[in-house]
Amino acid sequence: MINIKEDEKLSVMNHSCAHLLAQAIKHLYPNAKFWVGPVIEEGFYYDIDLGDEVLTEEDLPKIEKEMKKCSKDNKRIVREEISKEEALERFKDDPYKVDLISRMDENEVVISMYTQGDFTDLCRGPHVESTKLLKNFKLLKVSGAYWKGDAKNKMLQRIYGICFDNPEDLEKHLQALEEAKERDHRKIGKDLGIYMMSDLVGRGLPMYLPNGFILWHELEEYIRDKEIKRGYHHVQTPPLGNVELYKTSGHLAHYKDAMFPIMQVEDEEYVLRPMNCPHHMVMYDNDLHSYRDLPLRIAEIARDCRYETSGSLKGVERVRTFCQNDSHIFCTPDQIGDEFKGVVDLILEVYKELGITDYKFELSLRDPEDKVKYHQDDEMWNKAEDALRKIMSDYGVPYEEMIGEAAFYGPKLDVIVKPAVGNSFALSTCQIDFCLPAKFDLTYVDKDGSKKTPVVLHRAVFGSIDRTIAYYLEETKGILPLWLAPKQMVVMPVNSEFQGDYAREVTEMLQEEGFRVFLDDRNEKLGYRLRESQTKKIPYTLILGDNEKNDKTISYRLFGDKETTTLSQKDFIKLVREEVDQRKLFKK
Amino acid sequence: MINIKEDEKLSVMNHSCAHLLAQAIKHLYPNAKFWVGPVIEEGFYYDIDLGDEVLTEEDLPKIEKEMKKCSKDNKRIVREEISKEEALERFKDDPYKVDLISRMDENEVVISMYTQGDFTDLCRGPHVESTKLLKNFKLLKVSGAYWKGDAKNKMLQRIYGICFDNPEDLEKHLQALEEAKERDHRKIGKDLGIYMMSDLVGRGLPMYLPNGFILWHELEEYIRDKEIKRGYHHVQTPPLGNVELYKTSGHLAHYKDAMFPIMQVEDEEYVLRPMNCPHHMVMYDNDLHSYRDLPLRIAEIARDCRYETSGSLKGVERVRTFCQNDSHIFCTPDQIGDEFKGVVDLILEVYKELGITDYKFELSLRDPEDKVKYHQDDEMWNKAEDALRKIMSDYGVPYEEMIGEAAFYGPKLDVIVKPAVGNSFALSTCQIDFCLPAKFDLTYVDKDGSKKTPVVLHRAVFGSIDRTIAYYLEETKGILPLWLAPKQMVVMPVNSEFQGDYAREVTEMLQEEGFRVFLDDRNEKLGYRLRESQTKKIPYTLILGDNEKNDKTISYRLFGDKETTTLSQKDFIKLVREEVDQRKLFKK
Repeated sequence: MINIKEDEKLSVMNHSCAHLLAQAIKHLYPNAKFWVGPVIEEGFYYDIDLGDEVLTEEDLPKIEKEMKKCSKDNKRIVREEISKEEALERFKDDPYKVDLISRMDENEVVISMYTQGDFTDLCRGPHVESTKLLKNFKLLKVSGAYWKGDAKNKMLQRIYGICFDNPEDLEKHLQALEEAKERDHRKIGKDLGIYMMSDLVGRGLPMYLPNGFILWHELEEYIRDKEIKRGYHHVQTPPLGNVELYKTSGHLAHYKDAMFPIMQVEDEEYVLRPMNCPHHMVMYDNDLHSYRDLPLRIAEIARDCRYETSGSLKGVERVRTFCQNDSHIFCTPDQIGDEFKGVVDLILEVYKELGITDYKFELSLRDPEDKVKYHQDDEMWNKAEDALRKIMSDYGVPYEEMIGEAAFYGPKLDVIVKPAVGNSFALSTCQIDFCLPAKFDLTYVDKDGSKKTPVVLHRAVFGSIDRTIAYYLEETKGILPLWLAPKQMVVMPVNSEFQGDYAREVTEMLQEEGFRVFLDDRNEKLGYRLRESQTKKIPYTLILGDNEKNDKTISYRLFGDKETTTLSQKDFIKLVREEVDQRKLFKK
Repeated sequence: MINIKEDEKLSVMNHSCAHLLAQAIKHLYPNAKFWVGPVIEEGFYYDIDLGDEVLTEEDLPKIEKEMKKCSKDNKRIVREEISKEEALERFKDDPYKVDLISRMDENEVVISMYTQGDFTDLCRGPHVESTKLLKNFKLLKVSGAYWKGDAKNKMLQRIYGICFDNPEDLEKHLQALEEAKERDHRKIGKDLGIYMMSDLVGRGLPMYLPNGFILWHELEEYIRDKEIKRGYHHVQTPPLGNVELYKTSGHLAHYKDAMFPIMQVEDEEYVLRPMNCPHHMVMYDNDLHSYRDLPLRIAEIARDCRYETSGSLKGVERVRTFCQNDSHIFCTPDQIGDEFKGVVDLILEVYKELGITDYKFELSLRDPEDKVKYHQDDEMWNKAEDALRKIMSDYGVPYEEMIGEAAFYGPKLDVIVKPAVGNSFALSTCQIDFCLPAKFDLTYVDKDGSKKTPVVLHRAVFGSIDRTIAYYLEETKGILPLWLAPKQMVVMPVNSEFQGDYAREVTEMLQEEGFRVFLDDRNEKLGYRLRESQTKKIPYTLILGDNEKNDKTISYRLFGDKETTTLSQKDFIKLVREEVDQRKLFKK
């Protein structure tokens, strides 16, 4: 989908359309006050103070109508420049504008305003020449947004929209949005009974329904088995910790805003954990270690809780509690390369097996010129960065180097994916850390008998299982491979009166074989039931009529297919068993 | 082990011995002030205010010595009765005694004191005649204890002891204590690398080490598989919730003391969940239900957090966060019997398979005379209680009826076990609940089209997986059946120089077969390595010498056995595969 912000022409147009929106709002709501109206990847928005008024989607058509009217009026959009003092005087009754002007750069002595007919707004511009050029727009949604994004401030009304320079592009874009909506995991998640949300339970706290838990559990066992085969040791640690733990790790000092509030328990303070590294550091410290024991790969499907503003929550993609498929690999500096390679190898293997193809690698390195932003140990950095670069090019997968984007404590690799709706995010990550083990005084005894500090690799293949589920539902449009499908097969007698017994027999036999299969012998037409098995995206629909009953065979249709294949029971079991065991992808 | 409190003679003796302890303390610490010194199941204790002094185990011998001296002095123990006013006057300088006297029953007009030589204490008595009778005692431990058990109060010193009337019984008891210590899951848990605790992470927050996680995960998969086969639907819900959820359920009003502190998040309040029922109630409410859909069995291996005083924490038996193998069965009143039967059946099956034999059933019923303490619905109670009684006697398992012990909301069944050290607890439970669904306005559409409220059964086979692990380690003394053993086999070449390759080959072959097997090819004597495999309680030790290498066979010793058996590789795999698949118990 097009990125409006990066298209120069469309960016100006959308910015101007935000002003058109504001003008229309001013006509309809004379008391409206305006905060900011920026261009974003998806178009534009404007944050507006309407007093106690709360807008809904139903208000958008009438606002669009007024915008059309302002557009037809065809007013010229005129730039005017005034001094900061003049601006402050002119907007003195508008606390939002005063706030904006006061915070402007001191060197910005001249302030620009744009006027179109009866509406004037502060703006750096540039804008289109006249309102007539703003015809092909659409208001997309409205939501609440705290002033300056701070929940302690007033809630403003944020209206989103988009503008193109011809009706065809707009139409095409709206259609793409419609398709994205269909692919949105929030819709698929509801349709397939994957998860539910409830305000009574709490915002951003997903509840996985039976189908969702099956998917979750399959992914969990899948990744854990892979890790065990690769020499990871799985553990289980609690989802909270003493505040002292996060003082030691430095999270309390640098990460507090993303943490839940502290809880006083007797004479101690506890907090829900935002990350698992401190727990694993303490676990490492439970034993003495020799260089011979390293690398030590501690892994956990670990529950974390992070504070996110309610406005930023999104399905199971952005939540307040989630599980990481986390690991901390403790190793010697010499082992960084091999361990990093092992992680990249695991990520690529998993993506291939899940059929995830639409991702990009970002390698964040330090800026060697910057002597403040990064942990000072040139030799360590050089060695590690060289190893990482070499491994990435050995694999031959394209990756982008992000100089200056490394964390203070070391370089990192992120695997970035783009969801159906909204911003890209890192699905997997591997971060080298030169600092944390020292904070916990972790050591190992080296060959020469001296105590040394290990390096740690923080890595997650599924940065969050929740987010992976969100992304995977979107990638597959909910059409899951057999081994992951919560409901793998549905068995339908053509007519339950005649083949009901045989259908039950087949269902029970397949359940005994360990498949997730259920019976649909409702007294409904076959066509009706077939449509439902398509809506529910069930991989195999078994249709049993008199022939099947008499021959003891199974006829089936694959999802999305109209063709029917008939097999003996034995051959059918062999077919589906292989498909599950080999984790075959759905063939489109 | 003997229950001192329930033995009339020993109870008097131990109570008197508490006074002897106090007398000795007064001699050694003249400023000591005394709170209470009751008899308990395990003997007696006395809570003493020693100012800033903190006692350790090392102080106990000198206190015992002084007690012996007081005993030899052979003072008569004399009872005296005074009025409440006199008592208040007499003890006016002792705030603890004043507190005790002031809170005595108003009808208790006469207060008794006991004096032995230079020591007098308030006490209801009775006591033994003279201190000479208190010879066979032992002080067992010392710990801190908040005054009145409230963490806001001063920390007192609590000294525990026990007294018998002859040296043989004391000796026998101390030996039993020693054995219990060996069987204590805290010792076994450390020896076998099951879990660790760390004050930095937090009190009562267990961290399962790799071995512990394997045990945990096997138990988790075991019980979930069983439940899925019995028609349970597993889900996953978050370990916290909005406070409104617990207002609706009533937990906030009645269970707040056992909950963690409330967290303010934006304009809402959240709290770690102490129980899972509210989440499952909300999940039930996500769909419309017909009587045809019931029973609906929602199950979860669910994380809970409860506040326990730091003094009451104990290994993984009593913790602040744990996982329940929880389920809520939503059913019609007519289905209570069948569902209850299913739960009892599952409990008995699991106990049999795990070899748990030392338990008792307690059926808590209402007192039908009490019209206040129980939810008023006589028909519902009668029907349910009759069904429960009938099922228990149909099963022919002995059970105790506890009249008047039912919860407000319905009758319940508990399965009680006794740990190596400390108080009995309920390992499994099944509680019928007539009330909670109504609080969440849950309904189903009955045959006649009317909306009705379902009944819910709260049940847990593993009331907590943590506690089950604690109990099971004690029951088995850490000698786990093969399918649960974290390390199932260790492979040892007699001499790594000669059979090292073969040992590696066998290890890898068995790992490929999916067993948890590791190689011990250290350059240590076989006897040394064999002793270690016994200490680690590893079920199979494979000893590979030249014969085995040449014949491609496997010789093994079972844990605790000196005999060696030799099998072909194929037969060995068949043997251990069967033992795992059939979940065979360890044969003692």
